[in-house]
Amino acid sequence: MAVGEYPFPSMPPVAGVKLATASAGIKKPGRQDVVLIELAEGSRTAGVFTLNAFCAAPVTLCREYLKAASTRYLVINSGNANACTGARGRQDAIATSEAVAKLGGVQADQVLPFSTGVIGEPLPMEKITAALPRAHESLGDTGWEAAAKAIMTTDTRPKGFTGQIQHDGHTITVNGIAKGAGMIKPNMGTMLAYIATDADIAQPVLDDLCKEAANRSFNRITIDGDTSTNDSCILMATGKAGAAGVNEAEGILYEKVRELIVRAHEYLAKCIVADGEGATKFVTLEVSGGATGDECLQVGYAVAHSPLIKTALFASDPNWGRIVAAVGYAGVPGLDANAVRIHLNDTLIVENGGRADSYTEEQGQAVMDQAEIIIRIDLGRGSSAETLWTTDLSHEYVRINADYRS
Amino acid sequence: MAVGEYPFPSMPPVAGVKLATASAGIKKPGRQDVVLIELAEGSRTAGVFTLNAFCAAPVTLCREYLKAASTRYLVINSGNANACTGARGRQDAIATSEAVAKLGGVQADQVLPFSTGVIGEPLPMEKITAALPRAHESLGDTGWEAAAKAIMTTDTRPKGFTGQIQHDGHTITVNGIAKGAGMIKPNMGTMLAYIATDADIAQPVLDDLCKEAANRSFNRITIDGDTSTNDSCILMATGKAGAAGVNEAEGILYEKVRELIVRAHEYLAKCIVADGEGATKFVTLEVSGGATGDECLQVGYAVAHSPLIKTALFASDPNWGRIVAAVGYAGVPGLDANAVRIHLNDTLIVENGGRADSYTEEQGQAVMDQAEIIIRIDLGRGSSAETLWTTDLSHEYVRINADYRS
Repeated sequence: MAVGEYPFPSMPPVAGVKLATASAGIKKPGRQDVVLIELAEGSRTAGVFTLNAFCAAPVTLCREYLKAASTRYLVINSGNANACTGARGRQDAIATSEAVAKLGGVQADQVLPFSTGVIGEPLPMEKITAALPRAHESLGDTGWEAAAKAIMTTDTRPKGFTGQIQHDGHTITVNGIAKGAGMIKPNMGTMLAYIATDADIAQPVLDDLCKEAANRSFNRITIDGDTSTNDSCILMATGKAGAAGVNEAEGILYEKVRELIVRAHEYLAKCIVADGEGATKFVTLEVSGGATGDECLQVGYAVAHSPLIKTALFASDPNWGRIVAAVGYAGVPGLDANAVRIHLNDTLIVENGGRADSYTEEQGQAVMDQAEIIIRIDLGRGSSAETLWTTDLSHEYVRINADYRS
Repeated sequence: MAVGEYPFPSMPPVAGVKLATASAGIKKPGRQDVVLIELAEGSRTAGVFTLNAFCAAPVTLCREYLKAASTRYLVINSGNANACTGARGRQDAIATSEAVAKLGGVQADQVLPFSTGVIGEPLPMEKITAALPRAHESLGDTGWEAAAKAIMTTDTRPKGFTGQIQHDGHTITVNGIAKGAGMIKPNMGTMLAYIATDADIAQPVLDDLCKEAANRSFNRITIDGDTSTNDSCILMATGKAGAAGVNEAEGILYEKVRELIVRAHEYLAKCIVADGEGATKFVTLEVSGGATGDECLQVGYAVAHSPLIKTALFASDPNWGRIVAAVGYAGVPGLDANAVRIHLNDTLIVENGGRADSYTEEQGQAVMDQAEIIIRIDLGRGSSAETLWTTDLSHEYVRINADYRS
């Protein structure tokens, strides 16, 4: 199941980026499960990663390699997360980078490794290293959709974004792919996102853009509250579009590039929510009137993580009492229940500590029958606001997660 | 569904306590849905309540009445929570207390009102006040099981505890009943608990015992992470056993009474977990080796609230990677993943940042096949420890909560 239509777009090349996929047969024989991305010399790369203390070996390595050298390759496998694999996991991640480095004639620390899939199993290194030469030989400037498919785990569809801007007669392209369907939560779930542009962006500007865009997108979505060990969001800029350089966080070119990059992240994040495990609803949570942004997030996550609200959404039941209860237990100090106003889309459902006089069950039902729902919560105590995206909790979610691995 | 056998015990009277039930037909015609409890003059009462900012009108009133006067009656209805009902909700709760006060010849503030059920609907006052005289006329010193049944909502079985101690030739009895099956979380879900003893306990000692026992029981259980608007735990001491008074928090009689009261709370809390909505597993989380108790709770709740872990438990799948991931994202600052050790019952599954060398899938499967499972997490950084109880997440949970109200 998945909500709405998010068709994979037709993607033009990004100058300076080549891709390939190959089949290593990690989990299923014949499945394309390895992706190789090559960046032209002079490209710049930034990344944000899971905050999980049990972060996977490749995540630790990516952090080190990004500091040490300029990235030329990214190698991604699905089917196995190489997480909680102890010292051997680290050796395997290093060996994967070394194998790619040898093929590409670069240093090992110029190759970022990524893994997604089951936790706790050692990587099948022979299978992976056997597939890498085939991937390297077939590098080309198309293949974004094949790559998006190869990194999928419980995803039901590949996720891609493309956009272009014109500047001084040059075309700048931003392409992005992502995967992730469950275990998604603030600070990223089992999700991988790769966004590449041929804009020329200075490293400090790129680092800040990566953080800002991830924060406004992947760190604002939640499906089940779980944060995985492997999540990574990588922003790459090759500088091969021929346009002027973006050397500072100001100016018209910066603003245009920034807008497109943030939009790419937001779109991919929404694709992940809409493909949430067992999702039948796409829910936007707009929390406003907070004294701080943090308390808006606190309330938003309390609502987004409530299994009672999520099952009511699945049932298309306008059970606003469960929303009210979650707002009440979110832990906002000194919250005045009488000042809180709650809308479902444009229908006022709660004010003055209870159901709004104007509200009718028919109004609520009409909103809940839709696949895309906005829950607006005004805390009535300040001017801060935050937006989150989430899904419902369905029988299908339980089925997927009770059956996965078996 | 419910886990294990928790048969309702045969309960002796508690000297000074009378009970009755009546049918007001609040949600279903003919169902016993009103409970009246009468306490002998001179009884003392203590309570702890939900921290939800949208707490229900009766909760607010109970807090006020407990401060203002000595409680002589408790009146409880199921089928309607009288929560998020604004000014009218408060009037209705007061009117309920006044109606009982008139029947019993006491002041309104000597009558504590409680409600549980659907949020946001006004109380059907005519039905309730019509049932109260019938309840008052039938007060008697048995009827604990009938009362436990009358306060049920989605519970599948009544929950009761009884125990006695002997002291200087006197018998002291502790009886308790509780309800609650979903929406259970730290600081209490939709749960009500009434524990009565004929011990003679001074008010400050009773207040502390109530807090301590609730904290070690109802505040350590979680089913779905939701905290309701109505939760209340009431401890009553009539002093009619004839035994000596417990005037201070020391001495052999205090220790005996305290042990029995804490045991009553813990047992009722476990009954609630075992009857968790759709529960097929009873899970004990023992988190040790923490630098503080709070970080043990933080880790415990992260594991207990993870839908991925809960669905794996439902599937009897020893997917220890999901446990590791939850420990990792619980947010313990500076947690050393290599120092963490995790057992399923007595089987070591994780050490040195990965799967234990000695671990086999068969061992894990053998534990997971059981209905009662202990997950032991040693953080390896201190001497604090905490214990929580929770359940799995099943299809039945989704069915119950998607269908409730409809």
